[in-house]
Amino acid sequence: MTETVKKSILVFQTDFTFKEGAVASMYGVVKSVDHNLEIITATHEIPQFDTWSASFRLNQYMKFWPKGTVFVSVVDPGVGTHRRASVALTKSGYYIVTPDNGSLTHISKTEKISAIREIDEKVNRLKGMGTERTSIFHGRDLFAYCAAKLASGKITFEEVGPEYPVKAIVTHPISKPEISGKKVKGIFEIKDPNFGNVWTNIPLSMFTEAGFKYGDYLQVKIFNNDKLIFSEKVLFHKSFGFAEKGEPIIYNNEQMNIGLAVSMGSFSSRYNIDYGNNWNVEVTK
Amino acid sequence: MTETVKKSILVFQTDFTFKEGAVASMYGVVKSVDHNLEIITATHEIPQFDTWSASFRLNQYMKFWPKGTVFVSVVDPGVGTHRRASVALTKSGYYIVTPDNGSLTHISKTEKISAIREIDEKVNRLKGMGTERTSIFHGRDLFAYCAAKLASGKITFEEVGPEYPVKAIVTHPISKPEISGKKVKGIFEIKDPNFGNVWTNIPLSMFTEAGFKYGDYLQVKIFNNDKLIFSEKVLFHKSFGFAEKGEPIIYNNEQMNIGLAVSMGSFSSRYNIDYGNNWNVEVTK
Amino acid sequence: MTETVKKSILVFQTDFTFKEGAVASMYGVVKSVDHNLEIITATHEIPQFDTWSASFRLNQYMKFWPKGTVFVSVVDPGVGTHRRASVALTKSGYYIVTPDNGSLTHISKTEKISAIREIDEKVNRLKGMGTERTSIFHGRDLFAYCAAKLASGKITFEEVGPEYPVKAIVTHPISKPEISGKKVKGIFEIKDPNFGNVWTNIPLSMFTEAGFKYGDYLQVKIFNNDKLIFSEKVLFHKSFGFAEKGEPIIYNNEQMNIGLAVSMGSFSSRYNIDYGNNWNVEVTK
Repeated sequence: MTETVKKSILVFQTDFTFKEGAVASMYGVVKSVDHNLEIITATHEIPQFDTWSASFRLNQYMKFWPKGTVFVSVVDPGVGTHRRASVALTKSGYYIVTPDNGSLTHISKTEKISAIREIDEKVNRLKGMGTERTSIFHGRDLFAYCAAKLASGKITFEEVGPEYPVKAIVTHPISKPEISGKKVKGIFEIKDPNFGNVWTNIPLSMFTEAGFKYGDYLQVKIFNNDKLIFSEKVLFHKSFGFAEKGEPIIYNNEQMNIGLAVSMGSFSSRYNIDYGNNWNVEVTK
Repeated sequence: MTETVKKSILVFQTDFTFKEGAVASMYGVVKSVDHNLEIITATHEIPQFDTWSASFRLNQYMKFWPKGTVFVSVVDPGVGTHRRASVALTKSGYYIVTPDNGSLTHISKTEKISAIREIDEKVNRLKGMGTERTSIFHGRDLFAYCAAKLASGKITFEEVGPEYPVKAIVTHPISKPEISGKKVKGIFEIKDPNFGNVWTNIPLSMFTEAGFKYGDYLQVKIFNNDKLIFSEKVLFHKSFGFAEKGEPIIYNNEQMNIGLAVSMGSFSSRYNIDYGNNWNVEVTK
Repeated sequence: MTETVKKSILVFQTDFTFKEGAVASMYGVVKSVDHNLEIITATHEIPQFDTWSASFRLNQYMKFWPKGTVFVSVVDPGVGTHRRASVALTKSGYYIVTPDNGSLTHISKTEKISAIREIDEKVNRLKGMGTERTSIFHGRDLFAYCAAKLASGKITFEEVGPEYPVKAIVTHPISKPEISGKKVKGIFEIKDPNFGNVWTNIPLSMFTEAGFKYGDYLQVKIFNNDKLIFSEKVLFHKSFGFAEKGEPIIYNNEQMNIGLAVSMGSFSSRYNIDYGNNWNVEVTK
């Protein structure tokens, strides 16, 4: 048995969808750099221009991948204007190739970033095929190309381009969850556009500290800015199926944070709930 | 030339979509178990919670894959409640890693299942990374992880967990097609949500037995429960293009069963047709 | 280090979506022909029956792939009727496995096709598993199967089937862009159904010839047949972010052609714009 050399896997996320030829162009560039590189689609359905979601998703799945994996994240409303095109290296050993536009917010706080470099366009940008004079597809010309060179070992991290301070990374502000006695407060940090579950930034540990137990009915209040949107007693339990079909449930999600769902339904659609710092949640007994 | 060792391919189907980070989390778990495993996306767009469709789709495409392929099917409305998490081995040599909730219905009848085992969570569940206390993502923590171990040879089928009787597998009831003289009856078993074709459970052989030939105009009646929804003479032919654009056609589908379509249009949308045991079709000359 | 033998990559585009089992069936056929073949999804979301878009997309991304890549394009409204099932070889060394129904239009003009052969169904069609009597899924039974044999080296290009003249290839007529003095005219050749950008067939070089410069406000008129749909002064610049959020912009796209977009919005939705020879654009200073 002969094992082939392990190359780093390239994992892609963008807001391009598969509806046009952008993804196929990027993947072709990767295979032209190195035929043996493996490409995995994480998602091409990040909500358009939503660097907050890009940041959240990277943080959601990154830790499940082998160390050394190269993540390419292209949600890039500012393409061709002044924002840095960068490669970050996390303390845990992952690479993230991305515009530095907020997409590194969550990872900066959890995995921590040990160094970041701005991609040197002079050496790490695709050449030829008439691509030099376009400014609108860095996903293909810069991010995919540079990531492929890095993953295949054709360049080192140092050869990406000049380092800049980790402190200079662009991040979104995110409210912190709070506990005071038996009251827990947080925000909706993200929703699942498919099943309609919404996830707070409140860790399960705060629920435990507040004395909330599976089987309890908890008073949940949701505010959009200061406007009360939802106020109900909701069953706290370990999975959707413990609620009756069509009933809401408050549960511990796969990231050990508190989520809200409707059993066999969509919480976000039924109650018209979205996410961000202006979506506040308050839970008491 | 050195051939690399062939590992089993992992083929995934779920109702998760690519709209959030669940798929990327599952695939990361697989690659962390064994960097060399190949992952193929069958679909992540099974209709939500629809274990009938999960069952139908597995049966539609499974036989075209190499023996030994490991299929991971996660349509799991009952996640975290009492239903078995299982690995089935078919007589033809495929593995199916799935909640035992109806998703094995069709395969039980066609490929036949030679043995089934319940996944032992104590040994075949992902450990660490804070995953132990969540009950809502068996796709990642149990199914993907166990499937990767099986496909990579880290565990044998016997080591999945305790065997239970094939007879105990949960299946959906499915009406059988019938022929009496020149009249053929069946149900709509599935639709294609893209092109809008609807497929009956009536085999081509029954049409042949009834004396129906390509070029015939057949009387088609469709009932939802007892309510007549559609009653027209429809051209029976071998492909869509034999009907005028916009006209319905009755044809022999890729599984040698009878389907209904509109040429360059959608049968299910135009006539508001769905599928299941309560969608009955009757064909005469 | 032992390199494995490089096999040709198979790149798929269809209008099937992932909503049913067709893609998984095709991919299974490929892996059954040769377990080591690599499959990449370009897109399964070409607009239904739209062979013009299939043609455009192939041409958009093909040149970024390694020579020898085998592209499988199945947008096939005429499946099972009389149209050729073919394999084209481009001058640049790519293979395209496709119904000869217009999908080769753009490639015929850019990469040029050096030879084309009709697939011989007697030797290069999937056998067994009850597939012989169906006429509606050439994507699986003919295109995927034949492409896999070709990519794996089991057949040569000559063994695909009989050659026919390149001149006989079915192509769509496409209007040509024109320049007269300071006026440039063309058509909308395609749109991005995701971001809503629309792309003309006008090359950047015509804009340069007409003296248009980044920063200019250009008079853009759009006609659907003879009806004026849009007439505004639009900023010409190198990327979306140079326009105010919500404002239109005219720019040089990733193929060195002129496109129209709305910054952080959708040009095609806002102005109700589509593509084809009857969508005319006229640009002056």
